[in-house]
Amino acid sequence: MCDSDFYIHQDEPLVIVISGPSGVGKDAVIDRMKERQLPFHFVVTAATRKPRPDEVNGVDYIFISHDEFAEMIEKGELLEHAIVYNDYKGIPRSQVRQALESGKDVVMRLDVQGAETIRKLCPDALLIFLTAQSEHELVQRLQLRKTETPEGLKLRIATAKKEFNRIEAFDYVVTNKENQLDETVDVINAIINAEHHRVKMRKVTL
Amino acid sequence: MCDSDFYIHQDEPLVIVISGPSGVGKDAVIDRMKERQLPFHFVVTAATRKPRPDEVNGVDYIFISHDEFAEMIEKGELLEHAIVYNDYKGIPRSQVRQALESGKDVVMRLDVQGAETIRKLCPDALLIFLTAQSEHELVQRLQLRKTETPEGLKLRIATAKKEFNRIEAFDYVVTNKENQLDETVDVINAIINAEHHRVKMRKVTL
Repeated sequence: MCDSDFYIHQDEPLVIVISGPSGVGKDAVIDRMKERQLPFHFVVTAATRKPRPDEVNGVDYIFISHDEFAEMIEKGELLEHAIVYNDYKGIPRSQVRQALESGKDVVMRLDVQGAETIRKLCPDALLIFLTAQSEHELVQRLQLRKTETPEGLKLRIATAKKEFNRIEAFDYVVTNKENQLDETVDVINAIINAEHHRVKMRKVTL
Repeated sequence: MCDSDFYIHQDEPLVIVISGPSGVGKDAVIDRMKERQLPFHFVVTAATRKPRPDEVNGVDYIFISHDEFAEMIEKGELLEHAIVYNDYKGIPRSQVRQALESGKDVVMRLDVQGAETIRKLCPDALLIFLTAQSEHELVQRLQLRKTETPEGLKLRIATAKKEFNRIEAFDYVVTNKENQLDETVDVINAIINAEHHRVKMRKVTL
């Protein structure tokens, strides 16, 4: 901390979780962050589902079999995992650890429950809760997906409302306004920049 | 907090203290913030010294007599005050309160001791510690002032080193690199922007 009594700030890489209810635009925000070539490590999630035609293994996801996934769980190689429609998704621990060791901030996208799991594992993780400007906007975004049945939509809206009550587990809340993706990314960048100047730095050990 | 169960973020104006040892460039940073017309209220300090030819009363300082200053102290109208070479400087409480009531963030420049006083009065104030990149740079800046005797310079350097030990009272530390004033202001802006997105907002009452 000290260079002949002169103050030198100690900086540590951060674990940044972008979370929030279904439909707030988590993927769009992270895609825009990647497009802007921000100097973070974006976690490549391990998944058991089949790759879509446009998806590249190791870039979009790390596609593995159910057996391989089960083995990773058993060996404690996943920081967090979840079942999504009978398929498994998880965050490889070694990937996050390597990025941190190289000094890079790590960005991952997780649902609210996954973010809470990360909070328990790494109390010093930086948790950002993305929200929409209004319920109306959230409903519209979910309808645009066209993959939701009316019942599925109702369920997602009810879940989103419940998730707002869990915001206290998060550090920051950012409203992802419609057609203002760059503004959202600017705020997330400001948060990450600011966090690197905290006197009491977060320090994540995995 | 809730609009039919939908999460609306509560935002509060901030009290921001720019502090740090003598010679780190506090005035230069705040001047650049003013030049960039950032939407903050910059506190106009009350002072008992005579105005310099280029100084405008009510803009650069609020120039008042020793008697008026004494009365303000007695009536508790100063948030903080200090004696500087037999002259008095202080932060008018009503000015800060009015700015906050209008919803504006308030920025003030204080020495390290003054910042610690504000921390006691308003635990939720946002305290930023400015530092130089090296002791060499700090010495150079102090020498450039040409107002320092060799003994005065030694004293200021010794004080600066002691002040680094008090950094734990601060929230953020920003290195004001030489000829990088805009970078410094960008970081301060990022910090203020980020703080407006904290889930647990700071709330200052005076």
